[in-house]
Amino acid sequence: MDNKDHSIGRWISIIYRFGQSHINKNLEQFNISSGQNVILLTLYRNGGISQEVLSDYLKIDKGCIAKSIKKLEDEGYIQRKVDLDDKRAYKVFLTQKALEIIPQIQESIKNWEEIIISDLSDNEKEMMEQILYKMARKACNIKEKNEENEYEKD
Amino acid sequence: MDNKDHSIGRWISIIYRFGQSHINKNLEQFNISSGQNVILLTLYRNGGISQEVLSDYLKIDKGCIAKSIKKLEDEGYIQRKVDLDDKRAYKVFLTQKALEIIPQIQESIKNWEEIIISDLSDNEKEMMEQILYKMARKACNIKEKNEENEYEKD
Repeated sequence: MDNKDHSIGRWISIIYRFGQSHINKNLEQFNISSGQNVILLTLYRNGGISQEVLSDYLKIDKGCIAKSIKKLEDEGYIQRKVDLDDKRAYKVFLTQKALEIIPQIQESIKNWEEIIISDLSDNEKEMMEQILYKMARKACNIKEKNEENEYEKD
Repeated sequence: MDNKDHSIGRWISIIYRFGQSHINKNLEQFNISSGQNVILLTLYRNGGISQEVLSDYLKIDKGCIAKSIKKLEDEGYIQRKVDLDDKRAYKVFLTQKALEIIPQIQESIKNWEEIIISDLSDNEKEMMEQILYKMARKACNIKEKNEENEYEKD
């Protein structure tokens, strides 16, 4: 990897793609593929939620969320239940089978995060959190603005 | 987006995915989808190269590179030519059609990078370059180590 050819985009892409591949490798024994571990963790932290809320929280489009939910349901990791507050809607929940593998998912993500920051100094680690947060927040703002413009065009 | 629920992985994922979607949106008029713009830019900077070198340089697996090359060839953006140094191999090159859209691709990526760092202070911008570089370099090291282990297992 060449430092001279610096490009924020290329580095972000490498960190993201290699992270996915590392975590997937660790979890392949459970038949959980890319992105699905994040859905399981979100349901674990937040209890049952609807697909729409999941899509909004994770910033993953509704079609992709629907596909992942179907796959996780087929594998026995989640189940749908009618929403008691709105009988026409439903929420998704973790099954016992999912609860049992949550520690391994958490461990696998933590392990990756610890690896990639291990060459940073204490000062860099502290800065990294606030820098990445600001960049991600900006990315979210732009996405929302683009979606509003799309909506206005329709 | 909630700052309390801090997670390096989640922020990196948001920055990467929203960046892809922003750049793809800008380039959809050219029928270039995710990852293909990066291939075109790499060929522009480095001249004709083989698929293997492209895969290694971009850290994208050979199967994905092959599919993207096929799509870009069908769209008339690249062509294959026999490698003069090794008549059994070939390299891929940009066509005139590709050269004409390179400025828009560069502009689109630069625009995205400028947007996501626009909330950072000068000091944060400087730190960001070195932090991301260190994290990406570590990600590359780990990937190489994992691949060596896989190879030894075979």
